[in-house]
Amino acid sequence: MGSTWGNTIKISVFGESHGAGIGVVIDGFPPGIGYDEAFVLREMERRAPGRNKQSTQRKEADLPVIQSGIYGGKTTGTPICALISNTNQRSGDYAALAAQPRPGHADYTGMVRYQSCNDPRGGGHFSGRLTAPLVFAGAICKLWLHTQGVTVGSHIQSIAQIQDMPFDEVCIDPAQLEALRQADYPVNNPRALDAMLAAIEDAHMAQDSVGGVIECAAIGLPAGIGSPMLDTVEGRLSSLLFSVPAVKGVEFGAGFAFAALRGSHANDCFYLDGDMVKTETNNNGGVNGGITNGMPLLFRVCIKPTPSISSVQHTLNIETGKVEPLSIHGRHDPCIVTRAAPVVEAACAIALADLLREAKGYA
Amino acid sequence: MGSTWGNTIKISVFGESHGAGIGVVIDGFPPGIGYDEAFVLREMERRAPGRNKQSTQRKEADLPVIQSGIYGGKTTGTPICALISNTNQRSGDYAALAAQPRPGHADYTGMVRYQSCNDPRGGGHFSGRLTAPLVFAGAICKLWLHTQGVTVGSHIQSIAQIQDMPFDEVCIDPAQLEALRQADYPVNNPRALDAMLAAIEDAHMAQDSVGGVIECAAIGLPAGIGSPMLDTVEGRLSSLLFSVPAVKGVEFGAGFAFAALRGSHANDCFYLDGDMVKTETNNNGGVNGGITNGMPLLFRVCIKPTPSISSVQHTLNIETGKVEPLSIHGRHDPCIVTRAAPVVEAACAIALADLLREAKGYA
Amino acid sequence: MGSTWGNTIKISVFGESHGAGIGVVIDGFPPGIGYDEAFVLREMERRAPGRNKQSTQRKEADLPVIQSGIYGGKTTGTPICALISNTNQRSGDYAALAAQPRPGHADYTGMVRYQSCNDPRGGGHFSGRLTAPLVFAGAICKLWLHTQGVTVGSHIQSIAQIQDMPFDEVCIDPAQLEALRQADYPVNNPRALDAMLAAIEDAHMAQDSVGGVIECAAIGLPAGIGSPMLDTVEGRLSSLLFSVPAVKGVEFGAGFAFAALRGSHANDCFYLDGDMVKTETNNNGGVNGGITNGMPLLFRVCIKPTPSISSVQHTLNIETGKVEPLSIHGRHDPCIVTRAAPVVEAACAIALADLLREAKGYA
Amino acid sequence: MGSTWGNTIKISVFGESHGAGIGVVIDGFPPGIGYDEAFVLREMERRAPGRNKQSTQRKEADLPVIQSGIYGGKTTGTPICALISNTNQRSGDYAALAAQPRPGHADYTGMVRYQSCNDPRGGGHFSGRLTAPLVFAGAICKLWLHTQGVTVGSHIQSIAQIQDMPFDEVCIDPAQLEALRQADYPVNNPRALDAMLAAIEDAHMAQDSVGGVIECAAIGLPAGIGSPMLDTVEGRLSSLLFSVPAVKGVEFGAGFAFAALRGSHANDCFYLDGDMVKTETNNNGGVNGGITNGMPLLFRVCIKPTPSISSVQHTLNIETGKVEPLSIHGRHDPCIVTRAAPVVEAACAIALADLLREAKGYA
Repeated sequence: MGSTWGNTIKISVFGESHGAGIGVVIDGFPPGIGYDEAFVLREMERRAPGRNKQSTQRKEADLPVIQSGIYGGKTTGTPICALISNTNQRSGDYAALAAQPRPGHADYTGMVRYQSCNDPRGGGHFSGRLTAPLVFAGAICKLWLHTQGVTVGSHIQSIAQIQDMPFDEVCIDPAQLEALRQADYPVNNPRALDAMLAAIEDAHMAQDSVGGVIECAAIGLPAGIGSPMLDTVEGRLSSLLFSVPAVKGVEFGAGFAFAALRGSHANDCFYLDGDMVKTETNNNGGVNGGITNGMPLLFRVCIKPTPSISSVQHTLNIETGKVEPLSIHGRHDPCIVTRAAPVVEAACAIALADLLREAKGYA
Repeated sequence: MGSTWGNTIKISVFGESHGAGIGVVIDGFPPGIGYDEAFVLREMERRAPGRNKQSTQRKEADLPVIQSGIYGGKTTGTPICALISNTNQRSGDYAALAAQPRPGHADYTGMVRYQSCNDPRGGGHFSGRLTAPLVFAGAICKLWLHTQGVTVGSHIQSIAQIQDMPFDEVCIDPAQLEALRQADYPVNNPRALDAMLAAIEDAHMAQDSVGGVIECAAIGLPAGIGSPMLDTVEGRLSSLLFSVPAVKGVEFGAGFAFAALRGSHANDCFYLDGDMVKTETNNNGGVNGGITNGMPLLFRVCIKPTPSISSVQHTLNIETGKVEPLSIHGRHDPCIVTRAAPVVEAACAIALADLLREAKGYA
Repeated sequence: MGSTWGNTIKISVFGESHGAGIGVVIDGFPPGIGYDEAFVLREMERRAPGRNKQSTQRKEADLPVIQSGIYGGKTTGTPICALISNTNQRSGDYAALAAQPRPGHADYTGMVRYQSCNDPRGGGHFSGRLTAPLVFAGAICKLWLHTQGVTVGSHIQSIAQIQDMPFDEVCIDPAQLEALRQADYPVNNPRALDAMLAAIEDAHMAQDSVGGVIECAAIGLPAGIGSPMLDTVEGRLSSLLFSVPAVKGVEFGAGFAFAALRGSHANDCFYLDGDMVKTETNNNGGVNGGITNGMPLLFRVCIKPTPSISSVQHTLNIETGKVEPLSIHGRHDPCIVTRAAPVVEAACAIALADLLREAKGYA
Repeated sequence: MGSTWGNTIKISVFGESHGAGIGVVIDGFPPGIGYDEAFVLREMERRAPGRNKQSTQRKEADLPVIQSGIYGGKTTGTPICALISNTNQRSGDYAALAAQPRPGHADYTGMVRYQSCNDPRGGGHFSGRLTAPLVFAGAICKLWLHTQGVTVGSHIQSIAQIQDMPFDEVCIDPAQLEALRQADYPVNNPRALDAMLAAIEDAHMAQDSVGGVIECAAIGLPAGIGSPMLDTVEGRLSSLLFSVPAVKGVEFGAGFAFAALRGSHANDCFYLDGDMVKTETNNNGGVNGGITNGMPLLFRVCIKPTPSISSVQHTLNIETGKVEPLSIHGRHDPCIVTRAAPVVEAACAIALADLLREAKGYA
């Protein structure tokens, strides 16, 4: 019922955009994993706003302060808590929104769900800012996954219908994922990026916003992780991926393109590569019957256009009962896709760490 | 870790295709709900094989025998168990498959996951036959949802790229959903159906199979159900939807089409219809910020082509270590989409019942 | 919310005393464990009624029929379901009880909880008969625990204040536990047994009932199982032990006797026995800080006197609103303690298997 | 797997005794509950050390700083996080303990469980200091319970075998519970207190410690809360009560004294008091069949003597492999029972709030 997730590694996210602080508790994490602060801060930075002209100009320090769970540079095995203090809020920007719930946002549903008691400032607990602790938790999980030979990475598959080159479905190099992690914008094809940035700028000039698709991969996963029938890898991952704000679709492997394939082309035939069982193709995205098969785990999520736009919208004023024009001021990204990539990776890393710890036990 | 799902209403599915029996336990179900056997059996029948020439000719009685939880024609509030005995197995059909895991199936991953101890006959616990208890549980959940004014229904959105008319995103009549439930094939446009059946027959003649998309709706849901941040309606539903065999993608509202929209077209503006807050459009599929907004809940799942095909595939023989031809004999549907529709509805009904019971408590 | 329990190994118990059948689904159980039917049936027999003159004369076949999860004599790793059909009910015995909820029973609370929809015959889902599937699940868990070197056993510590010789707190022989398992009455001191049987007979003659205490041990557990702070071994075990009907208290090690000890006598000092860290005493019952320390796990539960007694009680008639005499007819044990021992062991075995699987993962 | 607990209201406790901070996240708490800071701080104060000469002289500010979940003086419905900074640590006191795990403590089991990576300073995550966030969470839960007419309170039933007057099992006045809450030492009989304090002082002079028993009550609970068979009120409460350090036994109603009763005396007969169904006695402690019956919920927990004692103990030195004398310096309570009372109440309040929210849903 809310902001806690996981079976063996449990995360509990807290905070509101304009409250005292936001953060996360990670329970059940393995002991003895080195805390690589530079790695974690880079992950935070990838998500942070204000890094380029397209993203929101609001500056956030986003410094996670470790409260517990790390001692002598290593995880202790007991709960890890990171707290990020909120320092730079302009509540005034949002004050008028109470009467006019923003279209595409959770203002109205939050009001119903919490009997108008939830903190409305900056979206409160619904704010995209809450993805910062999620990215912190994801970074911690990645550190453990690395010790298990597992790497998670992603790229922007599309923005405003401009397509990047997809991952090679049967063979992904960890170095490629690391390069994407270091890039300002994680794309495989630099020319696609130029077109994407232009499309974002177009939307920006039109006081509008655009969406896109993120493709995410996890490599190095052993075969045999996950469980039929009601606890599949796909189900476990998607249950967390839909927590990333603006995600409205998740597909694995060929995904919705399966609808256009015949079985003879859709099936991934097996062969032996040295000692390893592999598949010639990877339409199933590394998962058969809800269980990993040792091939790259591959999925895509769609990110809807940022609902906060400056152009006028006509929507209900709850106090008057009438549809009235609404202009949303404040700092908003015309495209959230670039910043969403590390968040999607984080959700993936958390879900995989949870699955892997279940498979491996305490050890 | 497996075949148990749910928070307040918990289901536990058991059985193997060729074992003694399959079934489900439903724990936490409200008391006093009338058991409408005809309704439940119709739901079972919708999923059952052998109903038409395209679907598998294997006959299954599929009669759920109530073991507990129903007394005097009503649910007791204590666990409901239904058992379906297995009566018509031809194990011989599957014997040769052990050495050659079927492409696109869980034969290989099941072997790794369960150290080759799982029952291989007919797919064992991975068999599509296990959707029968899921449909039973869904039917029971629908009975309760009806008392709450909630109706779940679906239609075949596409088979082999032939599109049916989608649901009206802002207004769906319960009578339309009931008509689809009674139909042999749940489609909105009869002409589309003819083309779909022809495409299935084509694939059948080619010893191949086709996939498709199912669109599912739930109407009558109150606003304010579900929870941010890590327990969204989309996440909860998808965690179960991916348990439906062959589902490889889930999208809500506009879903992946959001990637091509601008915010000004993607946002659903609010207005007042009498006492009810509604939205002009329903790109968000009835969910904002992970919480229902009172509009129809709308989502689509893609169903991959049946992996069991008669045409020859070249795939690993585990005993020889070589890729060898494989011909899968036995009874297989060239298209599973039609039979999948009631299963998708069942998963939806179970997830919504769980969410609604959480919201309403014991009452 | 009900009849499902567990984290990695999940059990789901169903059934009513006079319904079609009762049973259990065990999800998440390790694959490849040999199914020793004789062992399981012996466990069932230990709990079964009608074995001696003090216990209820109602005959129950109590034959668990395996529906799934066992193939080729071994567990498959997928859900195990066992069904026990109900064959010998005399509903008439209980008909009059509806108006007068039996004191000490769940008749009244069941009525409130389930809005009078629960099956009242024979206690319905509250019946002690529901411990039969629990014992089945415990027997299955014991089979796995044996492969891990863990043995669970118990004896009757007291009946009607007559004390048996307690277990040696620092050293228990598996052979002693096996001998108790084979005994008609699990006691360490045969002379105590004679006195206990006499006390039971006294109560029987007086149309009354007596309670007692069961001491349970698990040996062979590795150190380091369980988790602080909110998921202790004691907490996990007790959460299931209180499901055994009539259990109203649980204590570990010295338990309530700690209240009379000083720290200098209560603390268990460590020493090295070969390679193993042991403690000189075992007042903590094998658990420090919620985690096993490698010493025998030791706990006691109290079992209240059977609430079903033939002697007249004066209690509310709900229809008249008046206190009226009530005589409970039918077949009732004057002492349930002897039959409760295998049930307590079962609860212990299930909880330990769940904890151990969490620690060991899939392997 | 660790420090997260609950179904509908979930708490996640974090922190180590000598780390940066300790705290708790409360997820799923109802919105709109007034935050009564004075009430909460009083609860914290009841648990705090240094309040009298018997308790440890270490001063802790223990000021919970709200990070989220409270807005405009009320709960928001989204996660509440409170952080307590650690300010007054003397790590040196504990340095020598690493080689000699303290008897009765979690030093050894923590080392095994966490592969020696856990923070050893001051007990780390195992420290009694971690009960401070538990008390905070309990205080928050009490605030909601009050709005539902439920009050939780406790008294010291015994210290070193000196008995206080127990609660009246069938009728407890909220004012009595409030008076106990305000008292320096929660006892019903002031003369018993004098003897208790003398016994504590005796132990103190002997460089030793004493244990005791706490009796806890919850009044105002409606009948019909909780669920058979595997999710009883007793099981749910005890699963959390054993998280309170030093608790080694839990009993409900007559508890272990049931073992000496006959059924005719043990059963609680029903009668009608106005509109309310009540029982003449309350041996079952307000719970029948795992479900509340509307009578006071009554239970007792035993608290073992503080394992930290100054007198010399002979215990293993892990580095030398030999048993050597150990003197524990530092600040230790000769009796933890007085400070444990509010912690036991907190665990009770959290568990009841979780159960009640499950029963009542969002509302």
